[in-house]
Amino acid sequence: MNQGDALTPVQSKASAVVRAIQDEICGALEAAEADFGAGARFRDDRWERAAGGGGLTRILQGDVIEKGGVNTSIVFGELAPDFANQLPGSGTRFFATGVSLVLHPQNPHVPTAHANFRYIEHGDKRWIGGGGDLTPYYFHQDDKDHFHAVWRRYCEDFPAIADYPAWRDWCDRYFFLKHRGERRGVGGIFFDYVEVDPARPGHEDALLAFLAAGGRAFIDAYLPILRRRQPAAWTAAERRWQELRRGRYVEYNLLYDRGTVFGLKTGGRTESILMSLPPHVQWGYCEEPAAGTPEARLLEELRQPPPPGPVAT
Amino acid sequence: MNQGDALTPVQSKASAVVRAIQDEICGALEAAEADFGAGARFRDDRWERAAGGGGLTRILQGDVIEKGGVNTSIVFGELAPDFANQLPGSGTRFFATGVSLVLHPQNPHVPTAHANFRYIEHGDKRWIGGGGDLTPYYFHQDDKDHFHAVWRRYCEDFPAIADYPAWRDWCDRYFFLKHRGERRGVGGIFFDYVEVDPARPGHEDALLAFLAAGGRAFIDAYLPILRRRQPAAWTAAERRWQELRRGRYVEYNLLYDRGTVFGLKTGGRTESILMSLPPHVQWGYCEEPAAGTPEARLLEELRQPPPPGPVAT
Repeated sequence: MNQGDALTPVQSKASAVVRAIQDEICGALEAAEADFGAGARFRDDRWERAAGGGGLTRILQGDVIEKGGVNTSIVFGELAPDFANQLPGSGTRFFATGVSLVLHPQNPHVPTAHANFRYIEHGDKRWIGGGGDLTPYYFHQDDKDHFHAVWRRYCEDFPAIADYPAWRDWCDRYFFLKHRGERRGVGGIFFDYVEVDPARPGHEDALLAFLAAGGRAFIDAYLPILRRRQPAAWTAAERRWQELRRGRYVEYNLLYDRGTVFGLKTGGRTESILMSLPPHVQWGYCEEPAAGTPEARLLEELRQPPPPGPVAT
Repeated sequence: MNQGDALTPVQSKASAVVRAIQDEICGALEAAEADFGAGARFRDDRWERAAGGGGLTRILQGDVIEKGGVNTSIVFGELAPDFANQLPGSGTRFFATGVSLVLHPQNPHVPTAHANFRYIEHGDKRWIGGGGDLTPYYFHQDDKDHFHAVWRRYCEDFPAIADYPAWRDWCDRYFFLKHRGERRGVGGIFFDYVEVDPARPGHEDALLAFLAAGGRAFIDAYLPILRRRQPAAWTAAERRWQELRRGRYVEYNLLYDRGTVFGLKTGGRTESILMSLPPHVQWGYCEEPAAGTPEARLLEELRQPPPPGPVAT
């Protein structure tokens, strides 16, 4: 934070929520590193944003998580008018605080995971958004079922706020690589523009409580999968498949991901934004796994068309 | 090509020019593979475009060129109105033929190279565009000087058409990663919208002759550098540096490159467009070479601000 920027009470509460999620998730990941490896710890970088605000980037380069980032930021000031016009609310003044994480495990049998929880103000509108999604390299129905079951329960615990079936479908539409005809992964939930209704007493606190519960939901959704797949041995061929599939992750994040593209093009902290990119990546040419292999099974899952509705272009 | 699409005489001439450039460059590269390795050859894939036209993708996965593509295409039909409005000429009908190549060598001491030569018609306007640029992993002033000298001579051989100083600067502005504050490489030339003037007799043929000479210019500019750097031994640390820098190439192509982004978002052949992405790539976090190293010397060169004028955003 720059000196002298006073947050409103709700801004303070929201930024405390995202920092608590960051602490909770980093703690769970360091515990996994201690259990399965040499006990790698997060490296912390605090940074300030010239135009207002700052953040805490936490990077893990461990034995389980080959490269991961769990970042929080508080940013505020003026939006570019073109971008401001695409958002609820009027004018160009904004405030945003959020936590965003991407975890790229070493072992190809452990899926990559992403989650994000954010609180945003623009003009007279205030809203929350977020979600979590899973990108496996080998498909396991039970992993997908477990991951979704946790997000479903998370939503069902907040029936006045959340809508699991709609947000599951939004996730599948959002994380879709149109140029490949492939989903990025096996889904999860994605939600945005869940607005604070100033006429409803306690609504603001209810939304922040929902956001706060997202960190626990992510841990419950992902860590059991990480812990059960981590002991599996892997071959060089499986590692190559993982690196090729990581190429799709790069394509998605640089071509479609709204946060990445907007962040980079508006002077965000490049190394914090691009912590989402995997450590080792490969691109081949027209490589297609043989029918009947576990690699082909993954593609069968990912090549289901997205649910009806607009996809990113 | 789809059946039954008759080309006009100039369209036929232009597509013959780009195919001849493809043959000439592929021949020079196969000769280098034979001299330095096991004689790897290009793999050829012909493809058709549902909306009109097709192409020939030629991919090399060799001992010198770890992954390279030299592609030609002929495409025509209707442009999306938004895109058509950004081009000279009216309406949405277009015709385009071009050759595009990207070469990623195995050896970190050999630079990556890119070139493109194209002929385009849109409404009542017709023009050529193209250029070539060099992306080294280790900076050698003599390589940069040689590369530029060849493109300068190429331009000076066609004084009524080409403008080396302007096109050199255009290249440095075009291949600039704004989010990194880095040039992609050490430049070359970039030109576009060099229009056919129907009032000037022979102008069309002069432009096509200029385009045709571009293939030879690329070979003269790049192959001597490839041949003199290829024998150098390289370490694992140098290879890692190359793979990290290749990450910047990916960032450029997916975030800024007009051809890549437009091609992918309008249903081009994905595997042909993305042949430009390197085979093995790495992303680190806040890695900066130590002062005084050859790696730092490269960054010093690349971190010069672009020449005055608009850069890609």
